[in-house]
Amino acid sequence: MGDSFGKIFRITTWGESHGAGVGVVIDGCPSGLPLNVEDFQYELDRRKPGQSKITTQRKESDIAKILSGVFEGRTTGASISVMVSNQDAKPHAYDHLKELYRPSHADFTYEKKYGLRDWRGGGRASARETVGRVAAGTIAKKLLHHWRKIQTIAWVEQIHDIKSSVDKKTVKTKQIEASIVRCPDLEASEAMVERIHQARKSGDSVGGIIRAVVRNVPAGLGEPVFDKLTADLAKGLMSLPATRGVEFGLGFNSVTLKGSEHNDPFVIQKGVIRTKKNRSGGIQGGISNGEDIDLRVIFKPTATINYEQDTVTRDGKKTKLKAKGRHDPCVLPRAVPMVEAMINLVLTDHYLRQQKNSL
Amino acid sequence: MGDSFGKIFRITTWGESHGAGVGVVIDGCPSGLPLNVEDFQYELDRRKPGQSKITTQRKESDIAKILSGVFEGRTTGASISVMVSNQDAKPHAYDHLKELYRPSHADFTYEKKYGLRDWRGGGRASARETVGRVAAGTIAKKLLHHWRKIQTIAWVEQIHDIKSSVDKKTVKTKQIEASIVRCPDLEASEAMVERIHQARKSGDSVGGIIRAVVRNVPAGLGEPVFDKLTADLAKGLMSLPATRGVEFGLGFNSVTLKGSEHNDPFVIQKGVIRTKKNRSGGIQGGISNGEDIDLRVIFKPTATINYEQDTVTRDGKKTKLKAKGRHDPCVLPRAVPMVEAMINLVLTDHYLRQQKNSL
Amino acid sequence: MGDSFGKIFRITTWGESHGAGVGVVIDGCPSGLPLNVEDFQYELDRRKPGQSKITTQRKESDIAKILSGVFEGRTTGASISVMVSNQDAKPHAYDHLKELYRPSHADFTYEKKYGLRDWRGGGRASARETVGRVAAGTIAKKLLHHWRKIQTIAWVEQIHDIKSSVDKKTVKTKQIEASIVRCPDLEASEAMVERIHQARKSGDSVGGIIRAVVRNVPAGLGEPVFDKLTADLAKGLMSLPATRGVEFGLGFNSVTLKGSEHNDPFVIQKGVIRTKKNRSGGIQGGISNGEDIDLRVIFKPTATINYEQDTVTRDGKKTKLKAKGRHDPCVLPRAVPMVEAMINLVLTDHYLRQQKNSL
Amino acid sequence: MGDSFGKIFRITTWGESHGAGVGVVIDGCPSGLPLNVEDFQYELDRRKPGQSKITTQRKESDIAKILSGVFEGRTTGASISVMVSNQDAKPHAYDHLKELYRPSHADFTYEKKYGLRDWRGGGRASARETVGRVAAGTIAKKLLHHWRKIQTIAWVEQIHDIKSSVDKKTVKTKQIEASIVRCPDLEASEAMVERIHQARKSGDSVGGIIRAVVRNVPAGLGEPVFDKLTADLAKGLMSLPATRGVEFGLGFNSVTLKGSEHNDPFVIQKGVIRTKKNRSGGIQGGISNGEDIDLRVIFKPTATINYEQDTVTRDGKKTKLKAKGRHDPCVLPRAVPMVEAMINLVLTDHYLRQQKNSL
Repeated sequence: MGDSFGKIFRITTWGESHGAGVGVVIDGCPSGLPLNVEDFQYELDRRKPGQSKITTQRKESDIAKILSGVFEGRTTGASISVMVSNQDAKPHAYDHLKELYRPSHADFTYEKKYGLRDWRGGGRASARETVGRVAAGTIAKKLLHHWRKIQTIAWVEQIHDIKSSVDKKTVKTKQIEASIVRCPDLEASEAMVERIHQARKSGDSVGGIIRAVVRNVPAGLGEPVFDKLTADLAKGLMSLPATRGVEFGLGFNSVTLKGSEHNDPFVIQKGVIRTKKNRSGGIQGGISNGEDIDLRVIFKPTATINYEQDTVTRDGKKTKLKAKGRHDPCVLPRAVPMVEAMINLVLTDHYLRQQKNSL
Repeated sequence: MGDSFGKIFRITTWGESHGAGVGVVIDGCPSGLPLNVEDFQYELDRRKPGQSKITTQRKESDIAKILSGVFEGRTTGASISVMVSNQDAKPHAYDHLKELYRPSHADFTYEKKYGLRDWRGGGRASARETVGRVAAGTIAKKLLHHWRKIQTIAWVEQIHDIKSSVDKKTVKTKQIEASIVRCPDLEASEAMVERIHQARKSGDSVGGIIRAVVRNVPAGLGEPVFDKLTADLAKGLMSLPATRGVEFGLGFNSVTLKGSEHNDPFVIQKGVIRTKKNRSGGIQGGISNGEDIDLRVIFKPTATINYEQDTVTRDGKKTKLKAKGRHDPCVLPRAVPMVEAMINLVLTDHYLRQQKNSL
Repeated sequence: MGDSFGKIFRITTWGESHGAGVGVVIDGCPSGLPLNVEDFQYELDRRKPGQSKITTQRKESDIAKILSGVFEGRTTGASISVMVSNQDAKPHAYDHLKELYRPSHADFTYEKKYGLRDWRGGGRASARETVGRVAAGTIAKKLLHHWRKIQTIAWVEQIHDIKSSVDKKTVKTKQIEASIVRCPDLEASEAMVERIHQARKSGDSVGGIIRAVVRNVPAGLGEPVFDKLTADLAKGLMSLPATRGVEFGLGFNSVTLKGSEHNDPFVIQKGVIRTKKNRSGGIQGGISNGEDIDLRVIFKPTATINYEQDTVTRDGKKTKLKAKGRHDPCVLPRAVPMVEAMINLVLTDHYLRQQKNSL
Repeated sequence: MGDSFGKIFRITTWGESHGAGVGVVIDGCPSGLPLNVEDFQYELDRRKPGQSKITTQRKESDIAKILSGVFEGRTTGASISVMVSNQDAKPHAYDHLKELYRPSHADFTYEKKYGLRDWRGGGRASARETVGRVAAGTIAKKLLHHWRKIQTIAWVEQIHDIKSSVDKKTVKTKQIEASIVRCPDLEASEAMVERIHQARKSGDSVGGIIRAVVRNVPAGLGEPVFDKLTADLAKGLMSLPATRGVEFGLGFNSVTLKGSEHNDPFVIQKGVIRTKKNRSGGIQGGISNGEDIDLRVIFKPTATINYEQDTVTRDGKKTKLKAKGRHDPCVLPRAVPMVEAMINLVLTDHYLRQQKNSL
């Protein structure tokens, strides 16, 4: 239980790292949206491993098939089933993991919960699970653009201790995609690439921080009390593998401001009510206020490293996890489309929920 | 829509700051739990304003009434309705807010969403809404203690720039409650009290960080993919008013560690499989691993301050929000039971969900 | 678990027959609907016992209090809490039921499920639980009228073996309310009254069939596959106490027709596409087609009778349930507003769900 | 929206009659259940068209593929994706339906709801949609058998006006499967076969009634108030295509009994508390009482007939729907596994929900 997300625009994902494939069923997509397999390809390509020299070597073609819900090139309102077959499944590459728990992976907790686990490459806990999210996010992105040109842009803000400087008001997807680490600050990007290379060479891994902004958000998205936009975004983002924290607007940095400094006066700009500084990151009382949404997510360093590590076996004996040939030293560049997908899924759900708020 | 929380242990709250009262209906509580009104009082007293010289002056007696679901002192399995009447409602104290939007409050967003708003003290957006959460959290706390002696302990870790030093492994509720700011580091506590006094005197407010640990958590709570324990805790905590971010384990600080440093080897201690350092804050792959859960939440400085502030009217004219007599310079001490309540609600729901995971 | 109903317009009820009161929280009501306590009174009066000489003698004033969600006479979009106090609670009148299971009541099943039960007048299983449904149904009724003048009309079609003849196309609420059994066929109504009197005198009870039509339903309500309008109406109606079956359109009588007889040709009437005979009762493929919805619900004879009956005690000994003074020989007249409420709740939820079906 | 069913054991189906295939994702299946593709085949074969001379001629091999959630022959607790490819898709066989609405089909309502429709063989509204339900029902059946040997048996009780006589207490699956119409009364079965042949020859169709019993149901399944077992079974069954009504126990026939006749005394049999007559069909107050569940569902005559029929075009012109070569004169035999699947899905969900009812 727990493979579905959303209330009105609701997705259900399935699939393991080294099974037949991965996929998603989307329930609640309005009819009439033009949709074809090419729409998915751009985002799936951004998510897939092996895009550049700095990512994992696993080669996955990741080609989406639409199995239902689309007729003559448009959505019909029926549930949309999208599947991506696993091309590069090598289940036996993981035989050595069968009897032990990898440190900082989900091996131990899955087995405690279920009494057994699919030990082939993490099974359901693998980041490959996010293929379904990214595919569904593609549809969400198209809907948001159709409705109000709502646009989510995410980028790598920090890798290990290398920080970047980016103007969040003007940064464009094109600039982000020009960097193989998806950091639009070119100087920082180069340093990040170098840092990831070092990590790879030493068999190690590094984490980082992704920042995202959402533009053209209408005021009124999000529900009072429990389904605040902040709350649902936090849930969506913290459901991504390897995330350790999320913050909105000034986030943890707001702690050293006083109320008189943090408060954000309303002003009139071109006849429209705006906040002066967008200190709240576009969300007040859990509801969007029309300013850009602004958030940050931390991804810890990848748990799969090319080091010999101490661990224990399933039957409680000390053992060593041996170093193996291939690993992904930094998931951050691939996590950018995952973050965008989760944000777009939450916004689409809330966009559909806020219909008929008032008579 | 959005006034319910939880899947199996599901609560629905209602009530405005200056209406008839506030309350909660709890659906899914197992039968047989001893429960009476006194059970609620301890937590409601910790949540209420006016507990000490540093909090807001609003006097609320906040006495719970159990309207259903309890018979002869035990829960029956039926929905439990708990109500707290508003004693100190002064709706006309807010007449001056009717036509303007207070900076960094939810006035503007509620009105954009619904076309109207209850302007008496924030209405539904008031922190008074959390009474229902804290009442429901009391039941959750009792269930968790009954099942496994699971115990959630939260405290104020930081106020403004004053940090504390607390041993999270040994800290006790008694030590926390001995401090009127609920910070068990006595030296820091004194400085915090002083800082809050200063804020009050200058009509200003300060925010802070709450830390929480959960002890005796069995391994196996949390669901793969979307309903990870981290994700549901993040949602619950970010649904509290004034929160801006949440992090687990090392949180944002994990960014400067490499995988080889962050990874947490499994070890055998007294015949039990444990992680060596609990770097993940008790949750791996979204599922509890049996170690203490460890998390932090940031609350921004309270938006209600005793300053004249620039703002705009409902019809888009510039205006001033005048300073008024009473305000709460720091919500942190009262937020401690709110944080505990949300954590306990999430854990209770997941405890009930993980039954029958395996044949 | 199970005290909530609806997906977007979602109600949660609480309360026992002889506790403090009964109530409902409505989540998802649009803002701006004029609402006051008088709105509830008409429906609550129709539902309450003791309305006429033929119903149970229990006197309940059943006056609704609105505790939240309404400000200056209009709904605000916040959750609406409505409560009715129990005036005529006589818990000790039920002391003799404490140790035995009444035949055809829920005493036995509740105790098997929960290990204990509230034996005062059926507790949560009492028909008094429907007060919350009827209160929430009042709001639904107002919304449906506001949106499209959608109108649900139910009446008693049969009591015991007395059938009525009513023109479902023209029957009006006024005609129904003119009959104390709520059967607009005056001749049948008289016979029904007499039959109920006989049942009362002999300490017995009778059941019956309620028919309902819904007028001015727009085409397009209901979802494909599982949340068909028929399916959700069936669930709502079968959740009412004492119901044993439900049917739509020709219902069970369709069995003796052939496809060529049952099929309902589309025709053009005044430029609008209509079905010729409305054989499907307004719903085709689970979705409303714009014709009147037409359905029937059977209520079994009330289980509370004034007879000595064989039964067993909690500890499995044979015993007799003694006859007691007061009972309601026929619930049907009071069930009419319950049926209308459930239909209106389902339609309101689906009305809100079908927004944004298509781009 | 509406393609998911169940709360804890939750299925989501997808697929159209003449698209790539049909399938289902099952979320919430406990781990450790042995499962392989052969498990699905028996039920899918019972559901598929073309099993015998009396059913539709469409040939579908309907072979299930398990795409996720099973590892080394056992369920892992992850979502289970099952797919059946469409082998006999002939989309162009339906070109003549593109511009008109077939009488008593969902063509008109889907188009009113969504603005467009997949006109190939009914698209999502086709009975082919039930493949996913039957596949998921297979897993539910295995779980119910594993837990308590709970067994659901359904059969055809009536076709057109031909009634059967079957001992519901003793009837066995083998006897039902021995009849090509799935009616274990051999004499009635022969008459039914003949009646269906006549219908086919004349291009017509007939409906019927399916009866189902569930044996070995533990007391305590079902939730008070809205999620009564009767209510959820009614919803599940009424979500099947072509159903028009459902009843439990004595159903509509209870109307002519008085309370004293209908009431069912509790008795002690072999030390166990039982009801004497099972008048309630195994469910009292919405909760199972340990007796056999007993219910009936009516399926109207199939809308697809081989007759020329009057109808209208999409743009509102009168037209004729021409007779076409193949049709299924009676869906009842194939509906038997569909009914069993829905019952098993509801029972499995409630079995998982009733865990931890009491401390």
